[in-house]
Amino acid sequence: MHIDILTCLPKLIESPFSDSILKRAQAKGLVTVNIIDLRQYATNKHRTTDDYAFGGGAGMVMMIEPIDNCLTELKSKRTYDDIIYMSPDGQRLSQPLANELSLKKNLILLCGHYKGVDERVREHLITREISIGDYVLSGGELAAAVVADAVVRLIPGVLSDETSALSDSFQDNLIAPPVYTRPAEYKGWKVPDVLLSGHQARIEEWRHDQALERTQKRRPELLQKP
Amino acid sequence: MHIDILTCLPKLIESPFSDSILKRAQAKGLVTVNIIDLRQYATNKHRTTDDYAFGGGAGMVMMIEPIDNCLTELKSKRTYDDIIYMSPDGQRLSQPLANELSLKKNLILLCGHYKGVDERVREHLITREISIGDYVLSGGELAAAVVADAVVRLIPGVLSDETSALSDSFQDNLIAPPVYTRPAEYKGWKVPDVLLSGHQARIEEWRHDQALERTQKRRPELLQKP
Repeated sequence: MHIDILTCLPKLIESPFSDSILKRAQAKGLVTVNIIDLRQYATNKHRTTDDYAFGGGAGMVMMIEPIDNCLTELKSKRTYDDIIYMSPDGQRLSQPLANELSLKKNLILLCGHYKGVDERVREHLITREISIGDYVLSGGELAAAVVADAVVRLIPGVLSDETSALSDSFQDNLIAPPVYTRPAEYKGWKVPDVLLSGHQARIEEWRHDQALERTQKRRPELLQKP
Repeated sequence: MHIDILTCLPKLIESPFSDSILKRAQAKGLVTVNIIDLRQYATNKHRTTDDYAFGGGAGMVMMIEPIDNCLTELKSKRTYDDIIYMSPDGQRLSQPLANELSLKKNLILLCGHYKGVDERVREHLITREISIGDYVLSGGELAAAVVADAVVRLIPGVLSDETSALSDSFQDNLIAPPVYTRPAEYKGWKVPDVLLSGHQARIEEWRHDQALERTQKRRPELLQKP
């Protein structure tokens, strides 16, 4: 998979891609992530990519031209499955959407900043909009990093143990059961006996019961899904 | 506001805090963000903070002892309003929750990684759990950065123009209206006439109508909220 992330503040998201699974996935050749500085595509002499909003009001707006220039160049080299704008009013990121995106080959993630991008970018230049949740961030950069992380870890071979992702929360509409590690007792707080029993069948049954109970308690609506 | 972020992979989230508003907020003395390496609190000779899960299965589990040691030290220096564990089954981050957290003085954000933390940490050592959405990430680090960004930008003085945050999506249960900047025409795509009219009252009316229309179309359930 190839992911291009377009931003006017590339430094902001360097580190999530230079450590942990995103780094390992790139080292294994399974993924390439390019962080592209939109300022390179600015056309004015100060290399600015934003300007005041028409009609006044607080906050700067990202201009269409640098974005269009950048997208035109990228599209001349690759065929993209999706050009995604990160926006709080886009389609909500969910585990099924992450699964879907993990099957794509080439993706562009466009990060807004300040008040967002000129509306004409959203009307004419992108193919979909994704939100990571109902809250506002100072830019789309962290949201793009979240999407990249959620998606990349699902690509076969990225996680060292492939069964790990399958037992995550939200796969099967269940929240993951509690996990414990050593010591078996800490300050009087004990690990449940069954986990120390060695009976694998009983352990799996306990985990399923716990996952169901936790889902019923915390997120009952997940159990109603088809 | 003071935020301590506890992680076993501190490098992963250095950059979001060394640029943009999170950097400026710290430079202005409005916020301090400490990224704390849990490995410093490891007690074994290899300074590991994770171990295999009791009962078997894929994925490592973060041990209680380094976390407890770290929290004990931090709590001896400050009184924390909340010790928050980042978890996909926690309370969902929303704009009202970000508003609420922006009024706190001292916060701890604990990042899980791998399969998460030993359940006894969640039972005994934290005060609440927050999720940024229904999807699984490789760790809580990006989630903690998202919470910090959403919260810090609401602190008065952090954004250069304070009215900017008030006109964001989700404040007033409305999605933000479209924004435009120069040029007024690009490849035949024009900015709506009203925004160029100079009639501030008409512009505000248009923006409100657009916000309402967009909310009705994209997120009608927001309009049902009290």
